[in-house]
Amino acid sequence: MTEEPQMIDVRLGRIVIQDGLAHQYIYLNEEDGRRGFPIVIGNNEADEIHRVVHEEEPPRPLTHRLCYETIQALGAEIKRIDIVDLRDNTFFAHLVLQDKNGETTAVIDARPSDAIALALRARCPLRVAAHVMAAAVSDDDKSGSGEAE
Amino acid sequence: MTEEPQMIDVRLGRIVIQDGLAHQYIYLNEEDGRRGFPIVIGNNEADEIHRVVHEEEPPRPLTHRLCYETIQALGAEIKRIDIVDLRDNTFFAHLVLQDKNGETTAVIDARPSDAIALALRARCPLRVAAHVMAAAVSDDDKSGSGEAE
Repeated sequence: MTEEPQMIDVRLGRIVIQDGLAHQYIYLNEEDGRRGFPIVIGNNEADEIHRVVHEEEPPRPLTHRLCYETIQALGAEIKRIDIVDLRDNTFFAHLVLQDKNGETTAVIDARPSDAIALALRARCPLRVAAHVMAAAVSDDDKSGSGEAE
Repeated sequence: MTEEPQMIDVRLGRIVIQDGLAHQYIYLNEEDGRRGFPIVIGNNEADEIHRVVHEEEPPRPLTHRLCYETIQALGAEIKRIDIVDLRDNTFFAHLVLQDKNGETTAVIDARPSDAIALALRARCPLRVAAHVMAAAVSDDDKSGSGEAE
């Protein structure tokens, strides 16, 4: 039996969007601490996170909203997002879904950017594995990590 | 009771991706006829449609694949895509989901580009309402229509 790693509650600290760059940054900060680290994400996901934070809703459903509404239409909810690993400068996240009774129904592999965009819409908890936090904080002192596409 | 409009089976005819442009084109053609029309779509959705057609799968799940895998993880499937309306030069599509018994479980409003990207992955039928086909073919002789964001 695999023991669940220690998880740390985090929140989105800030989004840095610079026009003309191929990638953008978001920062995750500990809820109960002073540590934090950046994640390099794509423009599309950065734009979506910016829209959700600023409650800007385009007239037509864009892709993340379609994904969110599909989950709801199938009677499920997003329970939480876990960032579970950091390998070769790439973060790995899980989208944890639950049914109406709060039972976990599915755990889906996702890029952190997509997972966080959905989490902000769902207003659900966001957690980072303790070993990922330690490695990401250490990496940030060097060059930073992102998510491969 | 609303009568279902007559629906026409279509397929993706081609994708035109030109670097440096803000929007791209896909063409839908009748399965059993000679009519077809273009839809103006965003770069991100055009790239996804291109990847699915050419069976290029990035190492990490991008947003459409996440949406597709979420539907599967919740025990549902994409039954078909219907393009149901064209208003103010904007196309409107429905993502029709079914459970394992083939019963329709949800009909979700979507942009055609997202819906078609998911349909190609699911290899499900793609249909256009007859009045949309007629209007889109007529519009195409003038300036073309797209999907608002």
